[in-house]
This record gives sequence, structure tokens and C-alpha cells, in this order.
Amino acid sequence: MKFICEKQKLQEGISISSKAITGKTTMPILEGIYISAKDNQLKLIGSDMDVSIETMVDADIKEEGSIVIDSRLFGEIIRKLPNSEIIIETLENEIIQITCQKSVFNLVYMNGDDYPELPKINESLSVEVPQNILKSMIRGTSFAIAQDETRPILQGILFEVKDKKLNLVALDGYRLAIRTEFLDNDNDIEVVIPGKTLNEVSRILEDISDIVKITFTDNHILFNLSNTKIISRLLDGKFVNYSSLLPQEYKILLDVKKQELQNCIERASLMAKDSNSNLIKLDIQEENMIITSNSQLGKVREELNINLQGGEIQIAFNSKYLLDVLKNIEDDEVKLEMTSGVSPCVIKCKNTDNSKYLVLPVRLLR
Amino acid sequence: MKFICEKQKLQEGISISSKAITGKTTMPILEGIYISAKDNQLKLIGSDMDVSIETMVDADIKEEGSIVIDSRLFGEIIRKLPNSEIIIETLENEIIQITCQKSVFNLVYMNGDDYPELPKINESLSVEVPQNILKSMIRGTSFAIAQDETRPILQGILFEVKDKKLNLVALDGYRLAIRTEFLDNDNDIEVVIPGKTLNEVSRILEDISDIVKITFTDNHILFNLSNTKIISRLLDGKFVNYSSLLPQEYKILLDVKKQELQNCIERASLMAKDSNSNLIKLDIQEENMIITSNSQLGKVREELNINLQGGEIQIAFNSKYLLDVLKNIEDDEVKLEMTSGVSPCVIKCKNTDNSKYLVLPVRLLR
Repeated sequence: MKFICEKQKLQEGISISSKAITGKTTMPILEGIYISAKDNQLKLIGSDMDVSIETMVDADIKEEGSIVIDSRLFGEIIRKLPNSEIIIETLENEIIQITCQKSVFNLVYMNGDDYPELPKINESLSVEVPQNILKSMIRGTSFAIAQDETRPILQGILFEVKDKKLNLVALDGYRLAIRTEFLDNDNDIEVVIPGKTLNEVSRILEDISDIVKITFTDNHILFNLSNTKIISRLLDGKFVNYSSLLPQEYKILLDVKKQELQNCIERASLMAKDSNSNLIKLDIQEENMIITSNSQLGKVREELNINLQGGEIQIAFNSKYLLDVLKNIEDDEVKLEMTSGVSPCVIKCKNTDNSKYLVLPVRLLR
Repeated sequence: MKFICEKQKLQEGISISSKAITGKTTMPILEGIYISAKDNQLKLIGSDMDVSIETMVDADIKEEGSIVIDSRLFGEIIRKLPNSEIIIETLENEIIQITCQKSVFNLVYMNGDDYPELPKINESLSVEVPQNILKSMIRGTSFAIAQDETRPILQGILFEVKDKKLNLVALDGYRLAIRTEFLDNDNDIEVVIPGKTLNEVSRILEDISDIVKITFTDNHILFNLSNTKIISRLLDGKFVNYSSLLPQEYKILLDVKKQELQNCIERASLMAKDSNSNLIKLDIQEENMIITSNSQLGKVREELNINLQGGEIQIAFNSKYLLDVLKNIEDDEVKLEMTSGVSPCVIKCKNTDNSKYLVLPVRLLR
């Protein structure tokens, strides 16, 4: 194998594909990055068997072939080389030579044939979404993934295509996040993707409107960007019937400026950190919301203007759950729908209809 | 006590004084920040008994007094308050109230009278140095402070005033760093300042030519900036006679571009990381320096242009020690003075005379 490649392009390719190399596998070859040189393109693959990322890099191929090379060391070498053409060729004794201007590195490589094959994806069932929208949907739901391992299915995000809509849904025992976008597709799809994978996907997605083609099999999902493919296994089992968790009606509706509410809760939670409950109390009155918290550290009172329909209410929350929602909402104003101090609070954007969050209140002893 | 203060000013004052609060003391009151309100100024003090930082903040004092308040919590509250006027007043039962717009915090405070007194500094023996120069001198030497605790005096930086010069010197068993500046002062001073302190000092110093007045006692040193005073205890004992370590002559002199040399060594050291020795070899020839390194990981060869006077030489180094020096040199070109492969290498800036570094080579088995 021998090829010549621009340093910057090679570095980008390594950076993308090595995101799947987590070092959590027992197979030493998966600590390496797979490089195959063919048809004036390099194919770079990183994988931990759960997720695999394959990306293509333009190169001048002098001799075809494939190798696997330690991803950390190879990545560091390429990053530190001057911004110039890099020549990479295999020598005898499983040695690869990397040359760039007056720098010459010789490293041991592994045989490319020993690298595990990626799952075959039958490309029949698929949908298409712009990169920036998918990125925003993942960001807007992934914080609500369950952290504990008692119910593995909740460590994933539901990826649901239904009624010409794409829904991403995540929930743990305390809150629920739903992001929805219109999709011109008549399929019915319901798969659960490991949260870890989707976070890697969102790090690779860019804030551009280029299309991601998403293909499904029984066990895997493939995200196909222009030069990069991400394949992930799916989680086994059925997701919670989330729509049954959403209240059908509400008695109290309030509008509030998102950033103001977030700032008040962030300050109030400083006093709530002492215990683990992060408990803050909301006293919702005609035109004001009073937020209080107290602990051994001291107490705090915050006040902000709201627009209220329905009666006054006192309700308490774990501040972390409210803050997670508010930090991930892109709208300037939010609507809160409530019924009583012990029933769920639904949070929506005021000006868009693509986000729906539910947070359970903390029941207080009277 | 009651005062009104701009949030931004108070936040800066807390940020400066709390740099001395390390939490490494057994006295709970030293986890607090001392605030006294008097004569339309706040005096803020943070201390861990080794270092104390006192800073003044303009405020509208309504009622004089002094308190001590948990620095972490107080700092977080002030940081998260809106950018506006903050009113702080003591209430009954050792409670302090912090009000800013519609936010009200009540916290417990400790009595200011219980805070330990700062050392008295007799302001007779002193020197004056511009902030930016002192900052650069500390940065240029502190990396060479000994990390192990077997010789405590080497965990400090020698602060020497002699022959109208200020010298800062640090060394461990492997390298020596000297920074020198002209000083219009006829005193003879020789004190050793804990490295930890000087790093805090350099974080507070700004890149401006305003003067720092430095005052000495037998046990303490005081850095007096315009609004801030930093007091540190000195290390006991006598520093190593560093000038006896410097070679009187050299046989080989070479000039090289600093950044090129640094880049080559950084790349070469990627192959030297496998063992702990970071061993790289320099083969210095008429017009080139060849840098090589090899380990189980593989091998590397780097080549760069140099300007050589004297004979050719082979010499090996721990790459970390060379890199530490090169990263802290501000000149574009450096001079290396050597005599043999087993004698010290002296590194200087080519265009200025204020820096001198010595690095011991690694003796190779032949």
C-alpha cells in the first residue's frame, strides 16, 4: 500500500472515524483505525462493535492495500506533522513509513484483513433528514436518557416515524423529552438507538442543511452523510408507550421568558445543592412567579414576571430537571402547562410546536 | 455592616482574593473570604496561611463592619447575579442578606474578628518591577521547580537582587532556569519563594507595565500591586549556589529556529513516550541536526537546518526537559552551547540576554 494525502484531510478523517474507538472492547485490533487505499480514496474505519464510523478521504493512491494502525498514536503523529503532503507506504516486516517534508516515522501496523467486517445494511427502508435538524433533535432529547442501568431500553432514544412525522423521544423516571419534525415519508418505523451512539452522531453532524440518509434493519441503523457512514446496533425490546404519559388536559397555563426563568432557577439551585434533591419551590401567582429554596447553607427568593391563565399554584421541582429542559430549548419564550402541585408539568416552546417536555414535580410534605 | 457595590467589581475582587483559598488548611474560617467595609472601600482577603491575598474594591459603605463568608458559595452567587448593583447587609443571628434586583439571598456568615491577622510587613527593604516583566520572569523559570519533596528548598524560586540585577532561578536535578533583568537598586537580597505562591502571583499579574513593589522581611515577601497585596511566607534554608553549575566555556555553538526545533522534538517525543525516559538523540552535523527516537512503538527521524560553530556531536536528552525550555522562550531563535555528549547543554535566546537555561544530557551506553 502506498498513498499521498493532504495532512489536513487525513487529520479530519482520523478525527471522525476515531470517535467510534472507545477502547472499551477486548479486541486489540479495535484500538486501531482501519485504512484501505483504493480508487483514489482512503476508507477509514473506527469501531467498538456497537458503533462503527466509516469515512472517505481523497488521496493519490500509488498502490492499493489495507492496514490497521493504532489510532491514538497515528492520530497524534498526523496532527503534529506540518501542513503539507504526507506519503504513507508499507515496508517489509509489517512496518509502515510516514513521510512529511523532513519527518520520517516508522510504525508497526496490523493486517487489514484481520479487521472485523461491518454489518451489512440492506438499504431498502430509509428516511432523509437535514443534518442541522437531526443534530438539534438529538441535542434536545438526549439529556433525558436514563443514567441508571436498571432498564436498558431507557438508555436509548426512541426513533419513531409515524403519520409523516419523525419523533425522537427519551425519558427516565422523572422527565420526558420529545422532539418532532415533519417527514415526507409514509413508513412506520420504531427503533431504539443507544444514547451513546446518538451523541457520537450529533458530534459528527454539522449545522448545515445537507441531508442525512437513515437506513434501518432489524438490528442496525445506518446514518449516511456525504462522506461518512455511521452504523449502530439497535437496543432490543420495546420502548415505553410515551404518549400515554402525556396529560390530556391542563388547568393552568403560564408564559415566561426562557432565559429569565433559567437564570432565576440557576441562582435558586445554588441554595439547593446542599442536599441531593436540588429542591426548589415555585409559588405561581397572578403576575409573578416566586422561586424559593432553602437548606443548611441559607435561603434564596427569586421573583419574575409571568403571564398566567388559570388559578394560582404551589409546586416544587428538582431544579436540575427544569434546567436541563430550559438549557435545551431554542425558543426565547416557554409555556408551562400544569394542573396541580402533584401532577406533571408540561413545558413547550411558545413560538414553535416541535418540542414537548414533561417534568414530574416533587411531592412536598404538608 | 451594609454596603452597595457593582456586581462586576465585587466579582473581580472575589476572583483575585480567593486564589489564595486552597482548602488545604484545617482552619474552617480559612475556607471563607474576609470582607471588611470601611471608608468607602471593601477589603477582601483570602488566605491559606502560606499565601494571603488582599484586594480593595470600591463600594458605597452604609454601615462599617467585617464578616467572613464561604468563598465558594459567595463567589458563585455573585457570579450568577445580574450585572447590576448588589446590596449586602448583615441581619440578626449572623445572617447576611444579598439583594440584587429581585433576587434575595440569606446566608450564614462568620465573625470577621475571628479571622487570623496577616503578617506585619516592615516596608523598608523593597524593589520595584513592572508587572509584565515579573510575570514573564516567573513564567520563564517556574517550570524548572523540583516536583519531588526530597529537597524542599528546590520547590521554591530564588529571588536574588545583586549587582543592580534581579535574578529568578529555579532548578531540579536535571535542568536550571535563570531569568535576569536590570534593576535600579543597590540592595543585596536573596530569598526563596514557594513555587506555588509565585504561580498565584503570576496569575494575578497583568501584561501591563504598571509597577509591582516587592517588600522583604526575614520570613515574608509582599507583592504590592495597585489595589492588591500578596503576602507569602519564604522558604527556610539556603538555595543552591547555581552559578557554580554553569559551565565557564563551551566548544560547540549552534543557532537554530526555535519553533522548528520545538516542532521536531515534539514529533520525535511521540515515539519516546513508551518508556518513561522520553529519550531522543541529537546528531549534530555541519548544517543539519538529525533528531531520532525509537521504542517499541516504532521509530522517527527528524531533520532541521542549523548554523554550527565547532565540531560535530552526538548527544541525547529527555525530550520533556528541552521542550519545557523551548516552550518558555520568547525569542524566535535560540543558541545552544555544548562541549561533549556528557556535559551540560546551555540554551540562550539569540537576540536577548535575559534568559539562560541548562539541561543535562542523558548518558548513553555505547
